[in-house]
Amino acid sequence: MGDNQRERSFGRSHDQMRPVTLTPGVMRNATGSCMAEFGDTRVLCAATIEEGVPVWRRGQRAGWVTAEYAMLPASTGRRTPREQRGRRGRSMEIERLIGRSLRTVVDLRALGELTVTCDCDVIQADGGTRTASVTGAWVALHQALKAWVEADRIHRMPLVGQVAAVSMGEVGGELLLDLDYPEDSRAQVDMNLVGTADGRIIEVQGTGERASFDRTQLDALLDLGQAGIAELVRLQGEVTGFVPR
Amino acid sequence: MGDNQRERSFGRSHDQMRPVTLTPGVMRNATGSCMAEFGDTRVLCAATIEEGVPVWRRGQRAGWVTAEYAMLPASTGRRTPREQRGRRGRSMEIERLIGRSLRTVVDLRALGELTVTCDCDVIQADGGTRTASVTGAWVALHQALKAWVEADRIHRMPLVGQVAAVSMGEVGGELLLDLDYPEDSRAQVDMNLVGTADGRIIEVQGTGERASFDRTQLDALLDLGQAGIAELVRLQGEVTGFVPR
Amino acid sequence: MGDNQRERSFGRSHDQMRPVTLTPGVMRNATGSCMAEFGDTRVLCAATIEEGVPVWRRGQRAGWVTAEYAMLPASTGRRTPREQRGRRGRSMEIERLIGRSLRTVVDLRALGELTVTCDCDVIQADGGTRTASVTGAWVALHQALKAWVEADRIHRMPLVGQVAAVSMGEVGGELLLDLDYPEDSRAQVDMNLVGTADGRIIEVQGTGERASFDRTQLDALLDLGQAGIAELVRLQGEVTGFVPR
Amino acid sequence: MGDNQRERSFGRSHDQMRPVTLTPGVMRNATGSCMAEFGDTRVLCAATIEEGVPVWRRGQRAGWVTAEYAMLPASTGRRTPREQRGRRGRSMEIERLIGRSLRTVVDLRALGELTVTCDCDVIQADGGTRTASVTGAWVALHQALKAWVEADRIHRMPLVGQVAAVSMGEVGGELLLDLDYPEDSRAQVDMNLVGTADGRIIEVQGTGERASFDRTQLDALLDLGQAGIAELVRLQGEVTGFVPR
Amino acid sequence: MGDNQRERSFGRSHDQMRPVTLTPGVMRNATGSCMAEFGDTRVLCAATIEEGVPVWRRGQRAGWVTAEYAMLPASTGRRTPREQRGRRGRSMEIERLIGRSLRTVVDLRALGELTVTCDCDVIQADGGTRTASVTGAWVALHQALKAWVEADRIHRMPLVGQVAAVSMGEVGGELLLDLDYPEDSRAQVDMNLVGTADGRIIEVQGTGERASFDRTQLDALLDLGQAGIAELVRLQGEVTGFVPR
Amino acid sequence: MGDNQRERSFGRSHDQMRPVTLTPGVMRNATGSCMAEFGDTRVLCAATIEEGVPVWRRGQRAGWVTAEYAMLPASTGRRTPREQRGRRGRSMEIERLIGRSLRTVVDLRALGELTVTCDCDVIQADGGTRTASVTGAWVALHQALKAWVEADRIHRMPLVGQVAAVSMGEVGGELLLDLDYPEDSRAQVDMNLVGTADGRIIEVQGTGERASFDRTQLDALLDLGQAGIAELVRLQGEVTGFVPR
Repeated sequence: MGDNQRERSFGRSHDQMRPVTLTPGVMRNATGSCMAEFGDTRVLCAATIEEGVPVWRRGQRAGWVTAEYAMLPASTGRRTPREQRGRRGRSMEIERLIGRSLRTVVDLRALGELTVTCDCDVIQADGGTRTASVTGAWVALHQALKAWVEADRIHRMPLVGQVAAVSMGEVGGELLLDLDYPEDSRAQVDMNLVGTADGRIIEVQGTGERASFDRTQLDALLDLGQAGIAELVRLQGEVTGFVPR
Repeated sequence: MGDNQRERSFGRSHDQMRPVTLTPGVMRNATGSCMAEFGDTRVLCAATIEEGVPVWRRGQRAGWVTAEYAMLPASTGRRTPREQRGRRGRSMEIERLIGRSLRTVVDLRALGELTVTCDCDVIQADGGTRTASVTGAWVALHQALKAWVEADRIHRMPLVGQVAAVSMGEVGGELLLDLDYPEDSRAQVDMNLVGTADGRIIEVQGTGERASFDRTQLDALLDLGQAGIAELVRLQGEVTGFVPR
Repeated sequence: MGDNQRERSFGRSHDQMRPVTLTPGVMRNATGSCMAEFGDTRVLCAATIEEGVPVWRRGQRAGWVTAEYAMLPASTGRRTPREQRGRRGRSMEIERLIGRSLRTVVDLRALGELTVTCDCDVIQADGGTRTASVTGAWVALHQALKAWVEADRIHRMPLVGQVAAVSMGEVGGELLLDLDYPEDSRAQVDMNLVGTADGRIIEVQGTGERASFDRTQLDALLDLGQAGIAELVRLQGEVTGFVPR
Repeated sequence: MGDNQRERSFGRSHDQMRPVTLTPGVMRNATGSCMAEFGDTRVLCAATIEEGVPVWRRGQRAGWVTAEYAMLPASTGRRTPREQRGRRGRSMEIERLIGRSLRTVVDLRALGELTVTCDCDVIQADGGTRTASVTGAWVALHQALKAWVEADRIHRMPLVGQVAAVSMGEVGGELLLDLDYPEDSRAQVDMNLVGTADGRIIEVQGTGERASFDRTQLDALLDLGQAGIAELVRLQGEVTGFVPR
Repeated sequence: MGDNQRERSFGRSHDQMRPVTLTPGVMRNATGSCMAEFGDTRVLCAATIEEGVPVWRRGQRAGWVTAEYAMLPASTGRRTPREQRGRRGRSMEIERLIGRSLRTVVDLRALGELTVTCDCDVIQADGGTRTASVTGAWVALHQALKAWVEADRIHRMPLVGQVAAVSMGEVGGELLLDLDYPEDSRAQVDMNLVGTADGRIIEVQGTGERASFDRTQLDALLDLGQAGIAELVRLQGEVTGFVPR
Repeated sequence: MGDNQRERSFGRSHDQMRPVTLTPGVMRNATGSCMAEFGDTRVLCAATIEEGVPVWRRGQRAGWVTAEYAMLPASTGRRTPREQRGRRGRSMEIERLIGRSLRTVVDLRALGELTVTCDCDVIQADGGTRTASVTGAWVALHQALKAWVEADRIHRMPLVGQVAAVSMGEVGGELLLDLDYPEDSRAQVDMNLVGTADGRIIEVQGTGERASFDRTQLDALLDLGQAGIAELVRLQGEVTGFVPR
């Protein structure tokens, strides 16, 4: 065990996730919603369905799924100002990732000319807000689409698979799954993995933070991540009863 | 009883408030926080204390208390777009009201050159979001100031009184306390009252919505409102143990 | 008489307004216009009628009345920068008040799918710019609507009543009508009243400026205000010859 | 006389200006002000002096003179929207011209580290708003600088000369001085001249509006313009009593 | 020869231009393009044709030609920040000049309801970027229009003439043609001339930089400028083979 | 060979890069510059060094390296509007990637309190603009830092290694290195790799475009990418003579 190694939060080992809770239906006015908790990280996800598609998607007889991501100012230890005059690059990067991930498991033709917006608002930030967002947004999206299918406003369930996300990293020489904020801020390598129920990869992003890494480390991190994804996908299944068509 | 009268939500009479819950300490990373619930309206209030004051307040050996107000997009029945490119007038009006109300009960000289920002984020909107914001923000403010006083970062408690807010209105010919959204959208007269623990008024705003009202109606509405304030102030006292110095 | 009481401007008593002048027709290119002067406060009001209504009002066979409010940079003792990159909250609050007040006395169905914009530009500011704006904007609105009715572009006069506004306040322990800037900046209570020709209230806003007030004071202030409204409404009648239909 | 020639406004000949009035001191709160009227064009000019200079001018022991230009929405026949979200190119071009012109006759070292802002707000637009602005802004600037010199806040009068501006153009084959709006909108060539009391040129801008012109026309237009400048400079002298040091 | 006279760049005399190169076709993805080099000043001009016209031009069976102008941050000796949050006045002034100049030689009815955008991006700035932009944009415009005429997307060549631009100025008492940056920053008089192949003027802008000038100087500068225009127009003809219809 | 396979541009095989050219010193006014060409993709990279660091980096006795990325409007087949009112998410994502990659090989303490801005302006876009940007920006950065070291403005070369980037992807069932635009727009998997001279990874981003991929494909793509990086690093060495300290 390395010198600079510390006890992990929730007394977990290097390959364990924090306690994860996915609670659908927490917002009364949203068609679909989910509170996603990864340890102390809490993200409120809501899915809203609206008629029509963005201008550049018109006339294609297909729908669109997009995401918005924001942090409540007091979600972080030091207050984060609101993005009222132009967006921050980090937020835009994250909401593009969420939207892209969700679209991979939606049959946009089956959706028809509708737009689903998945709002991910971070209530409390302790690392992994983007992975909790993807994982919870899928649950909110499922609830919203199911409601419209049941109300016959969509003819066939457009959701064709599950998607979840988790972070991994190298911290103080050790490879860890699901980094909390203190781990994330000390990480030499920071990785995010978005994957499906059947073990395939939708997105991988790995960054050396003022450091680099080799193929062996990459492989070990991916092993950790894929185990995490499997656990999250199982949990999503439990709270939604989703069965791929 | 008028023709267009309807049963009120939660089976209450014209002079009753919805069930009110004030839960302090719901945000782990905020120094002070409170979930304020007025029936189905839920506002997450957080108070953050930062060193320094705005430029135009410098050199006065006194602090500042300000507020920000926003609605989560999915807090409303129809999704409300985020205010990312310039603010809406309504939000700015509300956050000016919250800040002004709180400053009335803070001794800014005792606060010293600190700025307290009270973020009020509407999680679920069902009428009365501004009054729940004022009422909950006071609880969050109390928690934050108390923590800094206990940590000796502020020498004397700067909070010198309580402030709470409630709405009243004329709906279908009847005068009502604490309007929910369906009532609010049918109201001929819409009023907000901000008051103190000792029955005084800090702010009153009454608007005829494409209608007007007379002094008799104004008096009756104020009677309703002051009774509501008394109830809210008592509840604030219970959850905070606040005793004015 | 209190210690800190001072002579009022224009040698007036506590219940007197400053000299008020309403001059219609001062802008050659505007369909309706009025220079409203409350003592040294001068506001140039203009009413412009345009085809169509805002997107969210379409298809309702009714019109819209809106207002914009701005101060010339040199209207204040210390130069006020222009609002070229986003609006200030105060201006938005005032223009919302003006628009709401005017709409109360306009039959929007009789107006038809037209939008009237009332621009209130403060040329000189000495307190009471919002009340002078409401009072003068009504005169400009009257002139514009009358011109379109006479030109048969509107079939029936949509203006169904008069609206005027005045400020009141507690300054140094005394209750005063129509505060000028030095009074306003010392006020403990600051109130604005918008009322009609028949003594009814359209809007009341009362704020304790780092102070609070009780129902007795509120009543006395409203008495002062309603007397002021009566005087303004009489003057509007004189300069426009308006007779409610 | 050409076929498409029309009677000029105010019954004037091709080489006559409209009636010009320059009224100093019209704004009570501004240190210097002037209402400049060229026929039906009315521009309210105000000069404000503030301590300090823009960042990029600091440490040069010299002052700065700048200008802002805006049109009241109802100044034009068809309402012109306010520039609240970014400026229009035309306005920026005009305010750069005004500032440049005024700086030519100010000794910025004598001014010291002060900034003079000349606000030119068009109350009524009928062609020539930029030339009326330059001409009136000089009068406002004179009044403001004189007041500060007399109050010993500036040691030596920094104004070293006069500057005025006028428009010329080719309309329907005829060369005209001081175009009103109907002439300006039909012009093939549109020219603005800024000049000094001693017949020199500070700025000349000539534009073929979907047309071109030759040197002979240019010369004839400049003759007209310089005669106009002489008249304006004489009028400025009358209302200010300015004698170059 | 004045005391403060210096050797001109490229060893040229007062009435000589810097070496000028116009290279059409340098951008593979643009319909028309041209690298315009005036000595060390390099501007990349591109002309793009798109269906439709701006809203305010619709229904006139005519097209539109517009321009955009920007400097790469590293084009200047000291890095120039990008204009990402609102435009600078100087850039807007320049792009309005380029657009106006080009429109003078385009038959907008022959163009039909198309919009041509001429992007002028300054790669390297050493004075005269606006004159190089006008001159090069004409070449790019010619290439784009010719391509669409040849592809039968436009029926008749809408380009009816040539337009080029050059700068002149008074520097250290001497009148110079085609100022480079060091000359421009020392100039007492700074002038830009836009002219046609047949010696007519489209636009003239002359500014005394904290100085003034008389008619004799103006005439001498225009003589220099018109000689420069003649040379540029000849060069444009060579690289494009343009023959006016 | 698959059905939908096509000939690659420049007649290359699946594991070959397009012809790459790196030309340092192309911008006279920039301290460091490089034209990076990957086939028809051309990016103009410039490195500018300025005194000082961003506010949040102050007092750390270390420098900062940042990047800006933009496309000339005519760089793409269909004109891309400029980002003048707020940035696009894609651009911000790319410039964050470039900055992060370069900082990995710069010793920020050796740099001292200086900021290096690497501007990457896409002149012509044919796929791989971000990878050409990273690769070319390193060359520009090297030239700028070397110049300041040689001028003794920086005491020790802060550049401690090389960094280059390349794209890979799955297109029509085949795994390809260095995708051009037609390949990129058909890709099922799109990956970017940023690596060092010694075969380590700085950043990997792999995205299934409405598809997913498995670990075997990921490995094969990384093999392709690392071979590409090796070639680019060798070419950077040739044009700069860089030897890691």
